[in-house]
Amino acid sequence: MIIVMQKGASKRDIENIEKEIENFGYKVHPIYGTERTVIGAIGDERGKARLQALETSPGVENVIPILKPYKLAGKELRKEKTQIEVVPGVIFGGKKIQVIAGPCSVESLDQICETAEAIKKSGATILRGGAYKPRTSPYSFQGLEKEGLEMLLEAKKRTGLPIDTEVMKESVVNLVSEYADIIQIGTRNMQNFDLLKAVGMSDKPVLLKRGLANSIKEWLMSAEYIMAQGNLNVILCERGIRTFETSTRNTLDLSAVSVLKKETHLPVVVDPSHATGHWDYIEDMSLAAIAAGADGLMIEVHPNPHEAWSDGSQSLTPPKFDSLMKKAKKVAEAIGREI
Amino acid sequence: MIIVMQKGASKRDIENIEKEIENFGYKVHPIYGTERTVIGAIGDERGKARLQALETSPGVENVIPILKPYKLAGKELRKEKTQIEVVPGVIFGGKKIQVIAGPCSVESLDQICETAEAIKKSGATILRGGAYKPRTSPYSFQGLEKEGLEMLLEAKKRTGLPIDTEVMKESVVNLVSEYADIIQIGTRNMQNFDLLKAVGMSDKPVLLKRGLANSIKEWLMSAEYIMAQGNLNVILCERGIRTFETSTRNTLDLSAVSVLKKETHLPVVVDPSHATGHWDYIEDMSLAAIAAGADGLMIEVHPNPHEAWSDGSQSLTPPKFDSLMKKAKKVAEAIGREI
Amino acid sequence: MIIVMQKGASKRDIENIEKEIENFGYKVHPIYGTERTVIGAIGDERGKARLQALETSPGVENVIPILKPYKLAGKELRKEKTQIEVVPGVIFGGKKIQVIAGPCSVESLDQICETAEAIKKSGATILRGGAYKPRTSPYSFQGLEKEGLEMLLEAKKRTGLPIDTEVMKESVVNLVSEYADIIQIGTRNMQNFDLLKAVGMSDKPVLLKRGLANSIKEWLMSAEYIMAQGNLNVILCERGIRTFETSTRNTLDLSAVSVLKKETHLPVVVDPSHATGHWDYIEDMSLAAIAAGADGLMIEVHPNPHEAWSDGSQSLTPPKFDSLMKKAKKVAEAIGREI
Amino acid sequence: MIIVMQKGASKRDIENIEKEIENFGYKVHPIYGTERTVIGAIGDERGKARLQALETSPGVENVIPILKPYKLAGKELRKEKTQIEVVPGVIFGGKKIQVIAGPCSVESLDQICETAEAIKKSGATILRGGAYKPRTSPYSFQGLEKEGLEMLLEAKKRTGLPIDTEVMKESVVNLVSEYADIIQIGTRNMQNFDLLKAVGMSDKPVLLKRGLANSIKEWLMSAEYIMAQGNLNVILCERGIRTFETSTRNTLDLSAVSVLKKETHLPVVVDPSHATGHWDYIEDMSLAAIAAGADGLMIEVHPNPHEAWSDGSQSLTPPKFDSLMKKAKKVAEAIGREI
Repeated sequence: MIIVMQKGASKRDIENIEKEIENFGYKVHPIYGTERTVIGAIGDERGKARLQALETSPGVENVIPILKPYKLAGKELRKEKTQIEVVPGVIFGGKKIQVIAGPCSVESLDQICETAEAIKKSGATILRGGAYKPRTSPYSFQGLEKEGLEMLLEAKKRTGLPIDTEVMKESVVNLVSEYADIIQIGTRNMQNFDLLKAVGMSDKPVLLKRGLANSIKEWLMSAEYIMAQGNLNVILCERGIRTFETSTRNTLDLSAVSVLKKETHLPVVVDPSHATGHWDYIEDMSLAAIAAGADGLMIEVHPNPHEAWSDGSQSLTPPKFDSLMKKAKKVAEAIGREI
Repeated sequence: MIIVMQKGASKRDIENIEKEIENFGYKVHPIYGTERTVIGAIGDERGKARLQALETSPGVENVIPILKPYKLAGKELRKEKTQIEVVPGVIFGGKKIQVIAGPCSVESLDQICETAEAIKKSGATILRGGAYKPRTSPYSFQGLEKEGLEMLLEAKKRTGLPIDTEVMKESVVNLVSEYADIIQIGTRNMQNFDLLKAVGMSDKPVLLKRGLANSIKEWLMSAEYIMAQGNLNVILCERGIRTFETSTRNTLDLSAVSVLKKETHLPVVVDPSHATGHWDYIEDMSLAAIAAGADGLMIEVHPNPHEAWSDGSQSLTPPKFDSLMKKAKKVAEAIGREI
Repeated sequence: MIIVMQKGASKRDIENIEKEIENFGYKVHPIYGTERTVIGAIGDERGKARLQALETSPGVENVIPILKPYKLAGKELRKEKTQIEVVPGVIFGGKKIQVIAGPCSVESLDQICETAEAIKKSGATILRGGAYKPRTSPYSFQGLEKEGLEMLLEAKKRTGLPIDTEVMKESVVNLVSEYADIIQIGTRNMQNFDLLKAVGMSDKPVLLKRGLANSIKEWLMSAEYIMAQGNLNVILCERGIRTFETSTRNTLDLSAVSVLKKETHLPVVVDPSHATGHWDYIEDMSLAAIAAGADGLMIEVHPNPHEAWSDGSQSLTPPKFDSLMKKAKKVAEAIGREI
Repeated sequence: MIIVMQKGASKRDIENIEKEIENFGYKVHPIYGTERTVIGAIGDERGKARLQALETSPGVENVIPILKPYKLAGKELRKEKTQIEVVPGVIFGGKKIQVIAGPCSVESLDQICETAEAIKKSGATILRGGAYKPRTSPYSFQGLEKEGLEMLLEAKKRTGLPIDTEVMKESVVNLVSEYADIIQIGTRNMQNFDLLKAVGMSDKPVLLKRGLANSIKEWLMSAEYIMAQGNLNVILCERGIRTFETSTRNTLDLSAVSVLKKETHLPVVVDPSHATGHWDYIEDMSLAAIAAGADGLMIEVHPNPHEAWSDGSQSLTPPKFDSLMKKAKKVAEAIGREI
């Protein structure tokens, strides 16, 4: 930490702060500048909220942390990219870009199986579908729950595609883990710390969506929560952040892909469907995500979008998805990857 | 709903949409304008995501909802202000402005009792203190849990002050309800819908903090979740939203108080401590909240802020809190209320 | 500046940076920590973009500025509040809170004089009215220009109220200065640096509105532009920032008033009309602004809001303004000020 | 416009509104719904702020515009993409993606010529360089002005590259037009309406950067300002918007490229240098911009970034730029374009 003293802070103020820093177990290293004094506090600063609270002490202007607050998720301990094998042959973080596709909600056995077969034909490698649905309104469809999980399993049996599905509460983590190959944490639960701890004790890979208004740093701290429980297989998923712009549902932050490559060894997936909220922007943003270096895509596909029980306006039809996949393959090759 | 057709939409497109609207059970009411056709869909539009998905149909430009999506929380069914009696004599939504104060975390019996006695002397009417703590880092102090609840209860016995404390997961809602007089839902859980349903089945008043990046409409939808389960005693708490400005921790949205007066009958509390993140802005923002018409304040007070285990830099000392309360009383009187 | 080296930066990287810092004319002060090296660069860091560019050098993690970038606007050189006398007896920054009121646009002599007389009766001390109008659409009314200035002057003659009016381009700064008692810089021009320099050479006080998405720091830097030209009479005006919330036109950042009290000696005015965009939120926000410590208010008043040529939905009628002023006086007294 | 009446609005309120709508010259078309009345106002709604002001009338809930406010910039009057020929053979809006490159500021003849030669060799087609610089601080380098323009011209003579440079005030529009092949309007001036009108009267193409916190709709309205003066050659440039995320300088909104393809016929350029603010994210974001469908790139290149007088930390060295261009060509080919 760097403690910046106010211009004109008294000698006594400075000495007091130095004493407090030592009491907290840090080595003190002052810099007496031309306009003000700056004090370095040397030692591991993770989990030390107390140094920050020195801001309330007389003479202190502000307190600036230096170290990154995450360890397991960061690149300081592990430099090479983490590869996460979901099922044999389906690996996130390798040369091949994985494509997760499927409807927002599981609605019926026919709907999920028809979608699964279509997306498989076009080259998707993982099936998504919500059995537990976080909905803004209590009057909206809330998901088929266990029945939906059974339908997903049947679709997996017929197509061989592994399954990604969301879990919203601790009490069903075990149940969902029995069906899912990837457990998804939704954007509204990115800082549901008890849920993070619970999936951290599961042995299934976790797909962690970025919170609507969470910084990349907070996102990595949430990955750290999961990893600190022993589950190191975390896949990050950018799905748009909330801004003032209203012509898209959210604002897709593709530069996050680039920042994450520098900050973490974990693989990164992009979800253009939730990010833009309109089916006609999904193809462009999928190609852009690949070019930016994403390790995977998550795309909503529904056989009849305008009959979907949720998120119809952001779903692709199977033919549109097929067309997108053909273009995606070319862009992937252009940057030395495959799909 | 209003469905706006594209300029130049074909007669067939328009007829198709009209048919679909009727299929969904709505009455069709078209307006043929000079530049384009606009179609009104008449009927209750709550929970009807399908109309929205018409955006994917040929010839449709966009779909505009007309009705408010909330019923119980809105003013259409209930015009007069809801009064919520926490314990006899402590009522939110009446003439008296209630002040909730106390430390971020319960740290020890001495700390919580000392604080409780101090804030009571200055006129606070409810004690706050976290036993379960949502922390961004897994390496930060996570709360004393049940032990913390016991300490709060002891502080209540000594001072008579009712207790407000946070619950973070369904599995402890019952436990926390035994101790708390107000159950608090934190900002990160505003859209943890399973938790909302769980506290909706409790008989204790719920203080629902606004999510970091949630609109007022979404906030009222979350109140609706709780109310739809039967618990109508929801107190809304504005605590700052996330913006680009970094000189405060969040941006306190005081106009939300004014908007909520128009939109809902539920009482509204303001938390300037979390909103600003700096103790020296709390007094100004407390007085402003009262002048804006808030029904209560929530303020962090700690006997020794720079020794606090969490949020020290935004906590007031008891003497500063006392000085604030004296000023608050005068502003309350100026607008015809009391504290 | 503090230069933070990467963990594992080589000795050579560190030495290179130290050499460069010295070349730029700073004293080097390294801190060798347990995990990484941090280098202090001692010297005046204002206007020194080069140190920041060290971020591109090998081994550097990031560069953190310590000093505030503004001098004249900051409190380090001047602690006591600046008082700005607009005309004899109308002073911003003293005990009395000044109220600027009037229509968005000057529309006719009758309209501006009728408004001026009404607001004066209610206690406003300055008349506002736009003769040059920044409008989002080229097809909207753009202002009466010089004719509008003449009408303002006539209203001043009849009521004695000094005039605040906006200037949008350098070429009319002199013309506007002949009529106006306060020159207003609008939110879209807060970083129109050539315009800032031009009004910096005027001898009239400048009311500088905060940019739609500008930080408090950038705002003070814009004040610094004006002051650096010799015009020290800058009044800051908070008028709402752009956020994701859509139930108000912008989000009024009242905590800015509190932050500015700590950061600058310049007086601060609040404009709740543009901030909220709805007449029914203006009274609450005006009272809140006073309680927060604002030195003035700017409020849109129009004799017939629904006939206004611009911004009708955020204008108060004279009777509503009168009622607001009565309440404002009480709140001002409650905090030891007057109106 | 659609005027939504409050639930329970009286018959008289409704009749009054209908009368006012007719007075404003619109045809009235009411829809009497189950819960409330909605009134369509049929007629051209551009430039009609008065209908919006009906929000202040008794019984009105809100007023919803239906038509797009821009005509010349929109796709309703012109469907095919506009092609803008800067100099013979350099066309924005065709198959070939144009790359504008060069330093933030012109610093010396050597610096600008050395850069021009390097970027030309790598395939850039236009040289950028600032002679007039908008700087946040009055103490920062403000540009070489006319001397800088002369240096750009010399670089053009030596390399044949046309020039893009910024203009900040009306009074030098003519001067800059003599030197520049593209006149650039910077992000801070996107709503400097007098400047927009001035360049609208120039015969040079205008590159219009998106404002820091401006919506796509406002951006197109600013293009409309220029086009309404007769200059139809407007190139839009996305350069990042302001959000809460701090790991990049701004947040690059690539979905804007996709939205603009749907909304306008004007070509779109992406500037990843200002958007991200860090040289190490520029390559990823350039490739992503191409894949998203951008018609051009604008990239900062400096021979010695850590010696740059401005924006050093976001500039590429010539070798890094060359490497980026090689990859960019491959991605362009993958989507059927060229570079």
